[in-house]
Amino acid sequence: MFNKLSAEFLGTFWLVFGGCGTAVLSAAFPDLGVGFLGVALAFGLTVLTMCYAVGGISGGHFNPAVSLGLTVAGRFPASHLVPYVVVQVAGAIVAATMLYIVASGRAGFELGSFAANGYGEHSPGGYAMLSALVIEILLSAFFIFIILGATSSRVPAGFAPIAIGLTLTLIHLISIPVTNTSVNPARSTGQALYVGGWALQQLWLFWVAPLIGGAIGGVVWKVVGDTAD
Amino acid sequence: MFNKLSAEFLGTFWLVFGGCGTAVLSAAFPDLGVGFLGVALAFGLTVLTMCYAVGGISGGHFNPAVSLGLTVAGRFPASHLVPYVVVQVAGAIVAATMLYIVASGRAGFELGSFAANGYGEHSPGGYAMLSALVIEILLSAFFIFIILGATSSRVPAGFAPIAIGLTLTLIHLISIPVTNTSVNPARSTGQALYVGGWALQQLWLFWVAPLIGGAIGGVVWKVVGDTAD
Amino acid sequence: MFNKLSAEFLGTFWLVFGGCGTAVLSAAFPDLGVGFLGVALAFGLTVLTMCYAVGGISGGHFNPAVSLGLTVAGRFPASHLVPYVVVQVAGAIVAATMLYIVASGRAGFELGSFAANGYGEHSPGGYAMLSALVIEILLSAFFIFIILGATSSRVPAGFAPIAIGLTLTLIHLISIPVTNTSVNPARSTGQALYVGGWALQQLWLFWVAPLIGGAIGGVVWKVVGDTAD
Amino acid sequence: MFNKLSAEFLGTFWLVFGGCGTAVLSAAFPDLGVGFLGVALAFGLTVLTMCYAVGGISGGHFNPAVSLGLTVAGRFPASHLVPYVVVQVAGAIVAATMLYIVASGRAGFELGSFAANGYGEHSPGGYAMLSALVIEILLSAFFIFIILGATSSRVPAGFAPIAIGLTLTLIHLISIPVTNTSVNPARSTGQALYVGGWALQQLWLFWVAPLIGGAIGGVVWKVVGDTAD
Repeated sequence: MFNKLSAEFLGTFWLVFGGCGTAVLSAAFPDLGVGFLGVALAFGLTVLTMCYAVGGISGGHFNPAVSLGLTVAGRFPASHLVPYVVVQVAGAIVAATMLYIVASGRAGFELGSFAANGYGEHSPGGYAMLSALVIEILLSAFFIFIILGATSSRVPAGFAPIAIGLTLTLIHLISIPVTNTSVNPARSTGQALYVGGWALQQLWLFWVAPLIGGAIGGVVWKVVGDTAD
Repeated sequence: MFNKLSAEFLGTFWLVFGGCGTAVLSAAFPDLGVGFLGVALAFGLTVLTMCYAVGGISGGHFNPAVSLGLTVAGRFPASHLVPYVVVQVAGAIVAATMLYIVASGRAGFELGSFAANGYGEHSPGGYAMLSALVIEILLSAFFIFIILGATSSRVPAGFAPIAIGLTLTLIHLISIPVTNTSVNPARSTGQALYVGGWALQQLWLFWVAPLIGGAIGGVVWKVVGDTAD
Repeated sequence: MFNKLSAEFLGTFWLVFGGCGTAVLSAAFPDLGVGFLGVALAFGLTVLTMCYAVGGISGGHFNPAVSLGLTVAGRFPASHLVPYVVVQVAGAIVAATMLYIVASGRAGFELGSFAANGYGEHSPGGYAMLSALVIEILLSAFFIFIILGATSSRVPAGFAPIAIGLTLTLIHLISIPVTNTSVNPARSTGQALYVGGWALQQLWLFWVAPLIGGAIGGVVWKVVGDTAD
Repeated sequence: MFNKLSAEFLGTFWLVFGGCGTAVLSAAFPDLGVGFLGVALAFGLTVLTMCYAVGGISGGHFNPAVSLGLTVAGRFPASHLVPYVVVQVAGAIVAATMLYIVASGRAGFELGSFAANGYGEHSPGGYAMLSALVIEILLSAFFIFIILGATSSRVPAGFAPIAIGLTLTLIHLISIPVTNTSVNPARSTGQALYVGGWALQQLWLFWVAPLIGGAIGGVVWKVVGDTAD
């Protein structure tokens, strides 16, 4: 269990440091910045790379909604859920801390949104709460559904990290303008702690929607995937 | 058959929600938007990811032109063609509906082209109908040809979703300026229903050209691919 | 042989139509254009996708410099070299023709450089002939070297199209500003025929340099790769 | 050993010529330039492609920090460390030389930063030395950790180059604004020799931090990875 929890800690650290790090440090760099496309790629690559590195140790969740969805689908023991979620959140918080240390090391640094998730006036594109709820539930459900399909016995071994990582890239391509994209309560929590105020007040949505979506994804897979020939 | 049709419904939903969603929500975001490159990547990743998730259940078509092309090539039973196309179109319409709900949730929302396909004055770059016909037929034919090749017994198992998804990315890189890129009548239908007017009037081309292309791709593969040593 | 030559014709068509098509139609689209990054991705994906589709039929060269390099390395019979090169050039010319038909279908169309390769005042970034010669030889040599390595028995089956296609993407990322990137005499010939004048006068370099590079790549592989344990 | 050292020389040449070449030639091209996103992709693809080409010959390090980390983890003989590092640095210097020859071949050429690594006033985004130290150590540690995981027996053969190459892409997406991204002392040395002055004065950090990080990555993998079931 030490190895599994260490792997989840490091993987979630990597997801937050890599994804939010690209958003904070590189996205809006003058003229040469990587934009939302670079951020989307970065989030996906954190998962792709760490699933290859430690997927065989912990399963490579790095996300409470994924752990919950796998439990609902009968692929992950409920007794492991709490320790997994605890180290995932811890990894995200430590990553946000390291990112703060790096990002604040230049003249004129301002915290800004620090890649925190938000809706309404804190949505990058000004989308209302309903849009945020719908898209976070929907994308989380498809995320877990695809994870379950890509790791099923129908797919040859070795391809799942590509499918799963690039799903996260796709999810960000669609939805950064709406909520800055969460689908991962741990990722949202680490950044919100540094931003405080509105980010903590809106944090509930980025726990509720991904977890609901994760559970839905698990149920839909059981109905559509597990019963197929 | 329930599982196959559910998989096609969900896969086509994902293709439209992910691809058109990126076009509508993220492409033109000020300064940080993902542009046509991000849209091209998104369309490809919808297919790459869903082919891993449910390709083993339904074959992973998500597109009437693909289903037709596979039938022409003798890889898909003609008796399944109509139910597949029906659920593909249904998935696209539901996806367009969900996208409308999300996208309209901000002040100042305007429908615009809503990622519908068009030619002439409704081509993003102002390309005439002949250009649209030629490129949609050509790209659809190559799309189905590559699908048939990548899923043939010459290619080791597991790589087809990468080849097929990235073909769709490539197709969008080339042709978004010409028609907003269809090569998929279901994808065109969902968006056209929301735009109405010109989009419905021009919808015929995005059924005719992809289906002709799909059939050509199937025939060419039979001549060039099936007869090879 | 009919199947092999048809595969090379279609593959080179796809390389030119997809790569040069993205350059001509999409690269400089106002605000949303895909830029050199999209062109680089497109060229690579043409090869990645067609190597999966027909690599098992013809070997998936789509490029006279590749055919020559493989011959030098002892992997391709010299007797096939001329027919391969002929259909490769034919495929490129037909692709340039189809691209001209599509691209000219809008008001205000101007041929411009039509994605032809050039140096000196026809280099996109104004690089002199020596820079063009050096980079085309160097990149062609590495291209063929990597092709030989990625298709050697040390690499598990199925990965070569990814390695080879993404090498072509990388080559374009580096060198579009210098020569518009050739490393492929067939690709250069198709576009030069439509541009005429300077493009035909400079075409020699885009035959000489890639072929020299291809031969060097073949020799270096024999020394470094074939003799390894 | 000749084959191994040749492979490391060519691989490090490719890493520097491809990655720094994209930075110098293509990143800031007016309107169509590939930006930091293209540079990040280029660095990653140099490693992805060369690991397929020669990974089976030399192991595919191309980086003194990788060689050290593998030694610490017990995967690489300490007796090979010095010759590997020598040819890696040599490959980087030759690559910088070739890049200089190409890049200087246009009117108005200015050396500028020539993709050298720096901190403080020579950091692209003006980040202080502490930020540079922290991020270079951190990213190098994760780089080596992921390399060890992706090449462990838990991962099916053939996927490691994808995981490792895309990790380097991710690392660049995060950190180009901070240090221009090193995580590789050889890559830093080649460019610094051409820039001279400040680049040589700051070069120590891009040896110390990646080597410390590489060693940490090796140790962490031994604790977390090697002891897992």
